[in-house]
Amino acid sequence: MDKRKMRHIPHKTIERLSQYRRALLICQATGKTHIFSHEIAKIQHITAVQVRRDIMLIGYTGTLRKGYNITELVNLIGIILDTDEVLNIAVIGIGNLGRAITKYFSGKRTKLKISASFDTNPDKIGKKYAGVDCFHINQLEKIIKEKNISIGIITVPSSETIEIKNKLVNSGIKGILNYTPKPVDVPDNVYLEEYDMTTSLEKVAFFVKMH
Amino acid sequence: MDKRKMRHIPHKTIERLSQYRRALLICQATGKTHIFSHEIAKIQHITAVQVRRDIMLIGYTGTLRKGYNITELVNLIGIILDTDEVLNIAVIGIGNLGRAITKYFSGKRTKLKISASFDTNPDKIGKKYAGVDCFHINQLEKIIKEKNISIGIITVPSSETIEIKNKLVNSGIKGILNYTPKPVDVPDNVYLEEYDMTTSLEKVAFFVKMH
Repeated sequence: MDKRKMRHIPHKTIERLSQYRRALLICQATGKTHIFSHEIAKIQHITAVQVRRDIMLIGYTGTLRKGYNITELVNLIGIILDTDEVLNIAVIGIGNLGRAITKYFSGKRTKLKISASFDTNPDKIGKKYAGVDCFHINQLEKIIKEKNISIGIITVPSSETIEIKNKLVNSGIKGILNYTPKPVDVPDNVYLEEYDMTTSLEKVAFFVKMH
Repeated sequence: MDKRKMRHIPHKTIERLSQYRRALLICQATGKTHIFSHEIAKIQHITAVQVRRDIMLIGYTGTLRKGYNITELVNLIGIILDTDEVLNIAVIGIGNLGRAITKYFSGKRTKLKISASFDTNPDKIGKKYAGVDCFHINQLEKIIKEKNISIGIITVPSSETIEIKNKLVNSGIKGILNYTPKPVDVPDNVYLEEYDMTTSLEKVAFFVKMH
Protein backbone atom coordinates (compact mmCIF):
# COMPACT_ATOMS: atom_id res chain seq x y z
CA MET A 1 0.00 0.00 0.00
CA ASP A 2 1.54 3.31 -1.04
CA LYS A 3 1.64 6.42 1.11
CA ARG A 4 -0.81 8.29 -1.11
CA LYS A 5 -3.45 5.61 -0.60
CA MET A 6 -2.74 5.34 3.12
CA ARG A 7 -3.33 9.05 3.53
CA HIS A 8 -6.95 8.54 2.49
CA ILE A 9 -7.81 5.98 5.15
CA PRO A 10 -10.49 7.61 7.36
CA HIS A 11 -9.55 8.56 10.94
CA LYS A 12 -12.15 6.17 12.35
CA THR A 13 -10.69 3.26 10.35
CA ILE A 14 -7.22 4.05 11.68
CA GLU A 15 -8.65 3.95 15.20
CA ARG A 16 -10.32 0.60 14.56
CA LEU A 17 -7.20 -0.87 12.90
CA SER A 18 -5.31 -0.12 16.09
CA GLN A 19 -8.06 -1.87 18.07
CA TYR A 20 -8.14 -4.84 15.67
CA ARG A 21 -4.40 -5.29 16.06
CA ARG A 22 -4.74 -5.28 19.83
CA ALA A 23 -7.47 -7.94 19.61
CA LEU A 24 -5.49 -9.97 17.05
CA LEU A 25 -2.39 -9.98 19.24
CA ILE A 26 -4.43 -11.24 22.18
CA CYS A 27 -5.90 -14.05 20.00
CA GLN A 28 -2.48 -14.87 18.58
CA ALA A 29 -1.10 -15.28 22.11
CA THR A 30 -3.67 -18.03 22.70
CA GLY A 31 -2.34 -19.98 19.70
CA LYS A 32 -5.06 -19.01 17.22
CA THR A 33 -3.81 -18.64 13.61
CA HIS A 34 -6.96 -17.55 11.75
CA ILE A 35 -9.92 -15.39 12.62
CA PHE A 36 -13.28 -14.50 11.03
CA SER A 37 -14.59 -10.96 10.69
CA HIS A 38 -17.51 -11.80 12.96
CA GLU A 39 -15.10 -12.89 15.69
CA ILE A 40 -13.20 -9.59 15.52
CA ALA A 41 -16.57 -7.80 15.43
CA LYS A 42 -17.68 -9.52 18.62
CA ILE A 43 -14.52 -8.53 20.50
CA GLN A 44 -14.87 -4.92 19.33
CA HIS A 45 -18.65 -4.73 19.81
CA ILE A 46 -19.20 -3.62 16.20
CA THR A 47 -20.66 -5.29 13.09
CA ALA A 48 -18.83 -7.85 10.93
CA VAL A 49 -19.65 -5.69 7.89
CA GLN A 50 -17.69 -2.81 9.44
CA VAL A 51 -14.71 -5.09 10.10
CA ARG A 52 -14.73 -6.44 6.53
CA ARG A 53 -15.06 -2.94 5.09
CA ASP A 54 -12.08 -1.65 7.10
CA ILE A 55 -9.90 -4.61 6.20
CA MET A 56 -10.90 -4.45 2.54
CA LEU A 57 -9.91 -0.79 2.59
CA ILE A 58 -6.34 -1.73 3.44
CA GLY A 59 -6.32 -4.24 0.59
CA TYR A 60 -6.55 -7.48 2.53
CA THR A 61 -9.01 -10.36 2.22
CA GLY A 62 -9.42 -13.57 4.12
CA THR A 63 -10.67 -16.90 2.86
CA LEU A 64 -14.27 -18.02 3.23
CA ARG A 65 -13.27 -21.18 5.01
CA LYS A 66 -10.60 -19.98 7.43
CA GLY A 67 -11.08 -16.23 7.67
CA TYR A 68 -8.10 -13.90 8.00
CA ASN A 69 -4.58 -15.10 8.64
CA ILE A 70 -3.78 -13.37 11.94
CA THR A 71 -0.03 -12.98 11.40
CA GLU A 72 -0.50 -11.51 7.91
CA LEU A 73 -3.14 -9.09 9.11
CA VAL A 74 -1.08 -7.98 12.13
CA ASN A 75 1.89 -7.35 9.85
CA LEU A 76 -0.19 -5.40 7.36
CA ILE A 77 -1.73 -3.21 10.07
CA GLY A 78 1.81 -2.66 11.35
CA ILE A 79 2.92 -1.38 7.94
CA ILE A 80 0.09 1.14 8.02
CA LEU A 81 0.20 2.27 11.64
CA ASP A 82 3.84 1.98 12.62
CA THR A 83 6.60 4.36 11.73
CA ASP A 84 9.95 3.19 10.37
CA GLU A 85 11.84 5.16 12.95
CA VAL A 86 11.06 5.67 16.62
CA LEU A 87 8.56 8.48 17.26
CA ASN A 88 9.57 10.46 20.33
CA ILE A 89 6.83 11.60 22.69
CA ALA A 90 6.76 14.10 25.55
CA VAL A 91 4.36 14.01 28.51
CA ILE A 92 3.63 17.46 29.91
CA GLY A 93 2.46 17.35 33.52
CA ILE A 94 3.76 14.45 35.57
CA GLY A 95 0.87 14.15 38.05
CA ASN A 96 -1.03 10.89 38.52
CA LEU A 97 -2.26 10.76 34.93
CA GLY A 98 1.11 11.74 33.44
CA ARG A 99 2.81 9.05 35.50
CA ALA A 100 0.16 6.48 34.54
CA ILE A 101 0.75 7.18 30.84
CA THR A 102 4.55 7.19 31.15
CA LYS A 103 4.49 3.88 33.01
CA TYR A 104 1.94 2.39 30.63
CA PHE A 105 4.05 3.02 27.52
CA SER A 106 7.36 2.28 29.16
CA GLY A 107 9.07 -0.31 26.97
CA LYS A 108 5.78 -1.34 25.39
CA ARG A 109 5.82 -0.22 21.77
CA THR A 110 9.28 0.01 20.32
CA LYS A 111 8.21 2.60 17.76
CA LEU A 112 6.42 4.93 20.19
CA LYS A 113 8.74 6.15 22.91
CA ILE A 114 8.12 8.57 25.73
CA SER A 115 11.45 10.39 25.73
CA ALA A 116 10.85 13.24 28.16
CA SER A 117 8.39 14.54 30.71
CA PHE A 118 7.86 18.09 31.95
CA ASP A 119 6.49 19.71 35.07
CA THR A 120 6.88 22.88 37.13
CA ASN A 121 7.08 21.19 40.54
CA PRO A 122 10.73 21.47 41.74
CA ASP A 123 10.38 18.15 43.60
CA LYS A 124 9.76 16.36 40.31
CA ILE A 125 12.32 18.04 38.07
CA GLY A 126 15.51 16.04 37.65
CA LYS A 127 13.76 12.82 38.69
CA LYS A 128 12.98 9.84 36.48
CA TYR A 129 9.46 8.40 36.07
CA ALA A 130 9.38 4.89 34.59
CA GLY A 131 12.88 5.63 33.31
CA VAL A 132 11.90 8.94 31.70
CA ASP A 133 13.64 12.20 32.75
CA CYS A 134 11.47 15.02 34.06
CA PHE A 135 12.48 18.53 32.94
CA HIS A 136 11.24 22.00 33.86
CA ILE A 137 8.57 23.26 31.51
CA ASN A 138 10.72 26.23 30.49
CA GLN A 139 13.09 23.77 28.81
CA LEU A 140 10.27 22.41 26.63
CA GLU A 141 11.34 24.00 23.34
CA LYS A 142 15.00 23.09 23.81
CA ILE A 143 14.37 19.43 24.76
CA ILE A 144 11.79 18.94 21.99
CA LYS A 145 14.40 20.00 19.44
CA GLU A 146 17.28 18.07 21.04
CA LYS A 147 15.32 14.83 21.39
CA ASN A 148 13.45 15.20 18.11
CA ILE A 149 10.08 14.91 19.85
CA SER A 150 7.07 15.01 17.52
CA ILE A 151 4.10 14.24 19.81
CA GLY A 152 3.09 15.97 23.04
CA ILE A 153 0.65 14.50 25.58
CA ILE A 154 -0.95 17.21 27.75
CA THR A 155 -1.94 16.16 31.29
CA VAL A 156 -1.62 19.49 33.12
CA PRO A 157 -4.45 21.19 35.08
CA SER A 158 -6.93 22.72 32.59
CA SER A 159 -6.00 26.26 33.59
CA GLU A 160 -2.62 25.65 31.93
CA THR A 161 -3.80 23.70 28.87
CA ILE A 162 -3.81 26.61 26.40
CA GLU A 163 -0.38 27.87 27.46
CA ILE A 164 1.15 24.40 27.13
CA LYS A 165 -0.56 23.81 23.77
CA ASN A 166 0.88 27.11 22.48
CA LYS A 167 4.34 26.20 23.71
CA LEU A 168 4.11 22.81 21.98
CA VAL A 169 2.94 24.34 18.71
CA ASN A 170 5.69 26.97 18.83
CA SER A 171 8.25 24.21 19.40
CA GLY A 172 7.21 22.61 16.12
CA ILE A 173 5.35 19.63 17.55
CA LYS A 174 3.38 17.61 14.96
CA GLY A 175 0.76 15.86 17.07
CA ILE A 176 -0.99 16.62 20.35
CA LEU A 177 -3.00 14.35 22.61
CA ASN A 178 -4.99 16.53 24.99
CA TYR A 179 -6.17 14.70 28.13
CA THR A 180 -7.41 17.82 29.90
CA PRO A 181 -11.11 18.82 29.91
CA LYS A 182 -10.21 22.09 28.16
CA PRO A 183 -10.63 21.85 24.36
CA VAL A 184 -7.84 23.43 22.29
CA ASP A 185 -7.33 24.68 18.78
CA VAL A 186 -4.29 23.82 16.67
CA PRO A 187 -2.94 24.93 13.28
CA ASP A 188 -3.71 22.73 10.25
CA ASN A 189 -0.29 21.12 10.25
CA VAL A 190 -0.70 19.75 13.78
CA TYR A 191 -2.85 16.70 14.42
CA LEU A 192 -5.00 16.87 17.53
CA GLU A 193 -6.73 14.14 19.52
CA GLU A 194 -8.71 15.02 22.64
CA TYR A 195 -10.07 12.76 25.34
CA ASP A 196 -12.02 13.76 28.42
CA MET A 197 -12.97 11.08 30.93
CA THR A 198 -16.09 13.01 31.90
CA THR A 199 -17.58 12.34 28.47
CA SER A 200 -17.09 8.58 28.78
CA LEU A 201 -18.47 8.55 32.29
CA GLU A 202 -21.49 10.70 31.38
CA LYS A 203 -22.21 8.34 28.50
CA VAL A 204 -22.16 5.30 30.79
CA ALA A 205 -24.26 7.20 33.35
CA PHE A 206 -26.86 8.07 30.70
CA PHE A 207 -27.33 4.45 29.74
CA VAL A 208 -27.44 3.34 33.36
CA LYS A 209 -30.15 5.94 33.97
CA MET A 210 -32.13 4.83 30.91
CA HIS A 211 -32.12 1.07 31.56
CA MET B 1 -38.48 15.27 26.53
CA ASP B 2 -39.88 11.98 27.77
CA LYS B 3 -37.80 8.96 28.71
CA ARG B 4 -39.00 6.94 25.72
CA LYS B 5 -37.70 9.56 23.29
CA MET B 6 -34.45 10.00 25.21
CA ARG B 7 -33.75 6.30 24.96
CA HIS B 8 -33.52 6.67 21.18
CA ILE B 9 -30.81 9.31 21.18
CA PRO B 10 -27.77 7.70 19.46
CA HIS B 11 -24.70 6.92 21.59
CA LYS B 12 -22.57 9.30 19.56
CA THR B 13 -25.01 12.16 20.13
CA ILE B 14 -24.92 11.52 23.88
CA GLU B 15 -21.13 11.72 23.70
CA ARG B 16 -21.27 15.00 21.80
CA LEU B 17 -23.92 16.49 24.11
CA SER B 18 -21.53 15.92 26.99
CA GLN B 19 -18.81 17.69 25.01
CA TYR B 20 -21.11 20.55 24.00
CA ARG B 21 -22.02 21.11 27.63
CA ARG B 22 -18.37 21.23 28.59
CA ALA B 23 -17.72 23.82 25.86
CA LEU B 24 -20.86 25.80 26.77
CA LEU B 25 -19.85 25.99 30.43
CA ILE B 26 -16.42 27.31 29.44
CA CYS B 27 -18.06 29.98 27.22
CA GLN B 28 -20.57 30.83 29.93
CA ALA B 29 -17.75 31.41 32.40
CA THR B 30 -16.40 34.13 30.07
CA GLY B 31 -19.73 35.99 30.26
CA LYS B 32 -21.12 34.84 26.88
CA THR B 33 -24.93 34.37 26.86
CA HIS B 34 -25.59 33.11 23.32
CA ILE B 35 -23.69 30.90 20.90
CA PHE B 36 -24.04 29.87 17.24
CA SER B 37 -23.80 26.28 16.04
CA HIS B 38 -20.69 27.13 14.01
CA GLU B 39 -18.98 28.40 17.16
CA ILE B 40 -19.68 25.14 19.01
CA ALA B 41 -18.58 23.27 15.89
CA LYS B 42 -15.25 25.09 15.84
CA ILE B 43 -14.51 24.25 19.50
CA GLN B 44 -15.39 20.58 18.93
CA HIS B 45 -13.67 20.29 15.52
CA ILE B 46 -16.84 19.04 13.84
CA THR B 47 -19.31 20.55 11.35
CA ALA B 48 -22.04 23.06 12.26
CA VAL B 49 -24.55 20.77 10.52
CA GLN B 50 -23.67 18.02 13.01
CA VAL B 51 -24.14 20.39 15.95
CA ARG B 52 -27.52 21.60 14.66
CA ARG B 53 -28.67 18.04 14.00
CA ASP B 54 -27.75 16.90 17.53
CA ILE B 55 -29.42 19.88 19.17
CA MET B 56 -32.52 19.56 17.00
CA LEU B 57 -32.69 15.92 18.08
CA ILE B 58 -33.13 16.98 21.69
CA GLY B 59 -35.90 19.36 20.65
CA TYR B 60 -34.08 22.68 20.96
CA THR B 61 -33.64 25.47 18.44
CA GLY B 62 -31.82 28.76 18.60
CA THR B 63 -32.68 32.01 16.86
CA LEU B 64 -31.16 33.03 13.56
CA ARG B 65 -29.90 36.31 14.96
CA LYS B 66 -28.48 35.27 18.34
CA GLY B 67 -28.00 31.52 18.10
CA TYR B 68 -28.61 29.27 21.11
CA ASN B 69 -29.24 30.60 24.59
CA ILE B 70 -26.35 29.04 26.51
CA THR B 71 -28.12 28.71 29.88
CA GLU B 72 -31.20 27.09 28.32
CA LEU B 73 -29.10 24.66 26.32
CA VAL B 74 -26.93 23.74 29.33
CA ASN B 75 -30.07 23.07 31.37
CA LEU B 76 -31.64 20.98 28.65
CA ILE B 77 -28.50 18.86 28.20
CA GLY B 78 -28.49 18.45 31.99
CA ILE B 79 -32.05 17.06 31.91
CA ILE B 80 -30.93 14.49 29.39
CA LEU B 81 -27.53 13.51 30.76
CA ASP B 82 -27.86 13.93 34.49
CA THR B 83 -29.56 11.60 36.89
CA ASP B 84 -32.03 12.81 39.51
CA GLU B 85 -30.19 11.02 42.26
CA VAL B 86 -26.46 10.64 42.78
CA LEU B 87 -24.91 7.78 40.78
CA ASN B 88 -22.32 5.96 42.84
CA ILE B 89 -19.14 4.86 41.13
CA ALA B 90 -16.34 2.49 42.13
CA VAL B 91 -12.75 2.63 40.88
CA ILE B 92 -11.08 -0.76 40.81
CA GLY B 93 -7.30 -0.54 40.92
CA ILE B 94 -5.90 2.47 42.72
CA GLY B 95 -2.60 2.79 40.83
CA ASN B 96 -1.60 6.02 39.08
CA LEU B 97 -4.57 5.96 36.69
CA GLY B 98 -7.08 5.01 39.39
CA ARG B 99 -5.79 7.83 41.58
CA ALA B 100 -5.88 10.28 38.67
CA ILE B 101 -9.54 9.45 37.99
CA THR B 102 -10.53 9.57 41.66
CA LYS B 103 -8.87 12.94 42.09
CA TYR B 104 -10.28 14.25 38.83
CA PHE B 105 -13.90 13.54 39.77
CA SER B 106 -13.51 14.44 43.42
CA GLY B 107 -16.24 16.99 44.17
CA LYS B 108 -16.63 17.86 40.48
CA ARG B 109 -20.02 16.59 39.34
CA THR B 110 -22.55 16.41 42.12
CA LYS B 111 -24.52 13.66 40.36
CA LEU B 112 -21.55 11.39 39.60
CA LYS B 113 -19.74 10.37 42.76
CA ILE B 114 -16.80 8.04 43.24
CA SER B 115 -17.89 6.34 46.45
CA ALA B 116 -15.32 3.58 46.83
CA SER B 117 -12.03 2.31 45.45
CA PHE B 118 -10.58 -1.19 45.51
CA ASP B 119 -7.13 -2.72 45.34
CA THR B 120 -5.23 -5.78 46.55
CA ASN B 121 -2.15 -3.94 47.83
CA PRO B 122 -2.25 -4.06 51.67
CA ASP B 123 -0.48 -0.67 51.83
CA LYS B 124 -3.43 0.95 50.05
CA ILE B 125 -6.36 -0.75 51.78
CA GLY B 126 -7.91 1.34 54.54
CA LYS B 127 -6.41 4.54 53.11
CA LYS B 128 -8.33 7.39 51.52
CA TYR B 129 -7.56 8.69 48.00
CA ALA B 130 -9.02 12.13 47.26
CA GLY B 131 -11.38 11.46 50.15
CA VAL B 132 -12.47 8.05 48.83
CA ASP B 133 -11.99 4.91 50.96
CA CYS B 134 -9.92 2.07 49.49
CA PHE B 135 -11.22 -1.46 50.21
CA HIS B 136 -9.83 -4.92 49.50
CA ILE B 137 -11.09 -6.34 46.24
CA ASN B 138 -12.69 -9.30 48.05
CA GLN B 139 -15.15 -6.83 49.58
CA LEU B 140 -16.28 -5.65 46.14
CA GLU B 141 -19.67 -7.36 46.11
CA LYS B 142 -20.51 -6.33 49.67
CA ILE B 143 -19.52 -2.65 49.24
CA ILE B 144 -21.26 -2.35 45.86
CA LYS B 145 -24.52 -3.45 47.49
CA GLU B 146 -24.04 -1.37 50.65
CA LYS B 147 -23.15 1.83 48.80
CA ASN B 148 -25.59 1.26 45.95
CA ILE B 149 -22.81 1.53 43.35
CA SER B 150 -23.98 1.24 39.74
CA ILE B 151 -20.83 2.02 37.70
CA GLY B 152 -17.39 0.40 37.90
CA ILE B 153 -14.22 1.89 36.40
CA ILE B 154 -11.56 -0.75 35.77
CA THR B 155 -7.93 0.41 35.99
CA VAL B 156 -6.22 -2.83 37.05
CA PRO B 157 -3.37 -4.53 35.13
CA SER B 158 -4.82 -6.23 32.01
CA SER B 159 -4.09 -9.70 33.37
CA GLU B 160 -6.82 -9.05 35.96
CA THR B 161 -9.35 -7.28 33.72
CA ILE B 162 -11.58 -10.28 33.01
CA GLU B 163 -11.70 -11.40 36.64
CA ILE B 164 -12.66 -7.89 37.83
CA LYS B 165 -15.23 -7.51 35.06
CA ASN B 166 -16.84 -10.82 36.10
CA LYS B 167 -16.89 -9.75 39.75
CA LEU B 168 -18.54 -6.45 38.80
CA VAL B 169 -21.17 -8.15 36.64
CA ASN B 170 -21.90 -10.69 39.40
CA SER B 171 -22.32 -7.84 41.87
CA GLY B 172 -25.12 -6.42 39.72
CA ILE B 173 -23.22 -3.42 38.31
CA LYS B 174 -25.06 -1.58 35.50
CA GLY B 175 -22.23 0.19 33.70
CA ILE B 176 -18.52 -0.49 33.19
CA LEU B 177 -15.78 1.82 31.98
CA ASN B 178 -12.79 -0.32 31.01
CA TYR B 179 -9.49 1.61 30.88
CA THR B 180 -7.32 -1.46 30.45
CA PRO B 181 -6.03 -2.58 27.02
CA LYS B 182 -7.88 -5.90 27.39
CA PRO B 183 -11.32 -5.82 25.70
CA VAL B 184 -14.16 -7.40 27.68
CA ASP B 185 -17.62 -8.78 27.03
CA VAL B 186 -20.64 -7.94 29.14
CA PRO B 187 -24.25 -9.16 29.31
CA ASP B 188 -26.90 -7.10 27.48
CA ASN B 189 -28.13 -5.40 30.62
CA VAL B 190 -24.70 -3.89 31.38
CA TYR B 191 -23.46 -0.87 29.44
CA LEU B 192 -19.80 -0.97 28.48
CA GLU B 193 -17.43 1.79 27.41
CA GLU B 194 -13.79 0.98 26.65
CA TYR B 195 -10.85 3.30 26.20
CA ASP B 196 -7.27 2.37 25.44
CA MET B 197 -4.66 5.12 25.29
CA THR B 198 -2.63 3.14 22.77
CA THR B 199 -5.35 3.63 20.17
CA SER B 200 -5.35 7.42 20.59
CA LEU B 201 -1.58 7.55 20.48
CA GLU B 202 -1.35 5.28 17.43
CA LYS B 203 -3.88 7.49 15.67
CA VAL B 204 -1.83 10.63 16.37
CA ALA B 205 1.33 8.77 15.34
CA PHE B 206 -0.23 7.72 12.03
CA PHE B 207 -1.08 11.28 11.11
CA VAL B 208 2.31 12.53 12.19
CA LYS B 209 3.91 9.88 9.97
CA MET B 210 1.67 10.81 7.01
CA HIS B 211 2.16 14.59 7.09
